[in-house]
Amino acid sequence: MNEHPTILGRHRLRVRYGETDQMGVVYHPNYLIWFNESRDALMSGIGIDVAAIERRGYRFPIVEVGCRYLQSARYGDEIEISAVLHYQRVARMNFSFEVRHQTSQRLLATGESVSVVTNADGKLLISLPAELKLAIEQALQRQQEISEHQPKENIS
Amino acid sequence: MNEHPTILGRHRLRVRYGETDQMGVVYHPNYLIWFNESRDALMSGIGIDVAAIERRGYRFPIVEVGCRYLQSARYGDEIEISAVLHYQRVARMNFSFEVRHQTSQRLLATGESVSVVTNADGKLLISLPAELKLAIEQALQRQQEISEHQPKENIS
Amino acid sequence: MNEHPTILGRHRLRVRYGETDQMGVVYHPNYLIWFNESRDALMSGIGIDVAAIERRGYRFPIVEVGCRYLQSARYGDEIEISAVLHYQRVARMNFSFEVRHQTSQRLLATGESVSVVTNADGKLLISLPAELKLAIEQALQRQQEISEHQPKENIS
Amino acid sequence: MNEHPTILGRHRLRVRYGETDQMGVVYHPNYLIWFNESRDALMSGIGIDVAAIERRGYRFPIVEVGCRYLQSARYGDEIEISAVLHYQRVARMNFSFEVRHQTSQRLLATGESVSVVTNADGKLLISLPAELKLAIEQALQRQQEISEHQPKENIS
Repeated sequence: MNEHPTILGRHRLRVRYGETDQMGVVYHPNYLIWFNESRDALMSGIGIDVAAIERRGYRFPIVEVGCRYLQSARYGDEIEISAVLHYQRVARMNFSFEVRHQTSQRLLATGESVSVVTNADGKLLISLPAELKLAIEQALQRQQEISEHQPKENIS
Repeated sequence: MNEHPTILGRHRLRVRYGETDQMGVVYHPNYLIWFNESRDALMSGIGIDVAAIERRGYRFPIVEVGCRYLQSARYGDEIEISAVLHYQRVARMNFSFEVRHQTSQRLLATGESVSVVTNADGKLLISLPAELKLAIEQALQRQQEISEHQPKENIS
Repeated sequence: MNEHPTILGRHRLRVRYGETDQMGVVYHPNYLIWFNESRDALMSGIGIDVAAIERRGYRFPIVEVGCRYLQSARYGDEIEISAVLHYQRVARMNFSFEVRHQTSQRLLATGESVSVVTNADGKLLISLPAELKLAIEQALQRQQEISEHQPKENIS
Repeated sequence: MNEHPTILGRHRLRVRYGETDQMGVVYHPNYLIWFNESRDALMSGIGIDVAAIERRGYRFPIVEVGCRYLQSARYGDEIEISAVLHYQRVARMNFSFEVRHQTSQRLLATGESVSVVTNADGKLLISLPAELKLAIEQALQRQQEISEHQPKENIS
């Protein structure tokens, strides 16, 4: 997915007791909940309030998801999730995720998800809502400007 | 709650892996999910399809819930939940629950919940939907008839 | 529960997408997960790391819980939960909770839970772990000192 | 994964209220919980009690999972999940899943997961527990015999 411009968001959370299972580690489907939360935090970070955009009739169902679990997360752990939007100018949002133990930066899991856009009745839309497209392009523009002034570093 | 007519429903389920936590037993909020499922199974048992009645614009939010945990449930356990509707002829449904280990009939937890009725916008309604009221009263009538013919036994 | 000394903890969270149900509001068992998280945050606030104390062989199962739902919480809402420990010097911790919408301070729910202490095999202990007891008493002592210097205000 | 012998298990469930989200459909991470439940039902179907084998010190953590969502599942829907074990004689179990609406047999989602085997401390084992290996090979043998007598049909 390297050819597309990307936007990075970082999200932090602490593992809840109920997120563990009897193996003593985080039950694996919970990583998808974290991915979802990180995606929304990224959106929020570029000025998109997912709750508000849903009230205007849009939905962003996930149509594909994958996760590879490398090391366990445990109750109380501080977790950092990097979400990267790979922007393709179509009504389909590809995200990739890295889940790390916050202090050690050990990589716990990687994953990806694909979201589409529908109206409130679930009908697939063929373009992103204008406000979302604008927010993404403005974020990319800001990144570009930062990159030109600080050529050796780019947040994504 | 003894003074009101009651309807009993029994519901069975098997404990899922993800319902456990790192104590090795069922994480306590899951019992409320089981209560909810048992309530719906009871409704279904008297001919009410909760999904269908919601599509006609009714909602049955829970406004109060309580649970006392006596013994642990474990992954793979077959669980039996008795849900009892204490019918009060008002737009408020009081349920009580007993959670048992199916084979041993050991009592694992007891609980209760109160549901009200709202429209789709969350406005509180002051009477039960007619179809629900009818279904409850027919179920009570059937029970009454059974009780008259088999005076020593009553399913509730 | 007024007669016992109390310790207050405040915990904030943002409602996750997956915490909603098809009524469009937070699914009611999730409040118990929030209570649990708030309890642990309070413990952490007085210097007790619940994960660490569990590794030393203690468990704090919840044996009783109740919740009353007053108003709905929605996806994206910033929530503030006040957890209050009502300290009774026995191996039983009574907590009460208030769930508020953070900005408006509207009260969404109230609840309470009772935790006991067991060893790793689930055997009930008749006294709190010494380190927990000490942490609670030190927190109460600090509060007392604050209270003496600022007589008109008390964090609990 | 066609080259390996396969074992099929079917599992049925009814969508719980709390499995929906505010889109009015099943929240996507719940499919992974269903996959997990179906995997365990398949194991149970060939005579392996996952709870019991865990008590003997084995764990079967999932190291990789994927899901593609084709159509929505809704509250109250009867769901049928086909789980297929693709047996490779190594200490790694590859499963694939199909989630269908039970009555219409509409395909709702497909997925796959990979489980490894560890001891209770999380140490990776390089072979399956003997009892599991035996159960799988006996199930394959029974299938083979059925297949020889009814050449046109094979449950997998």
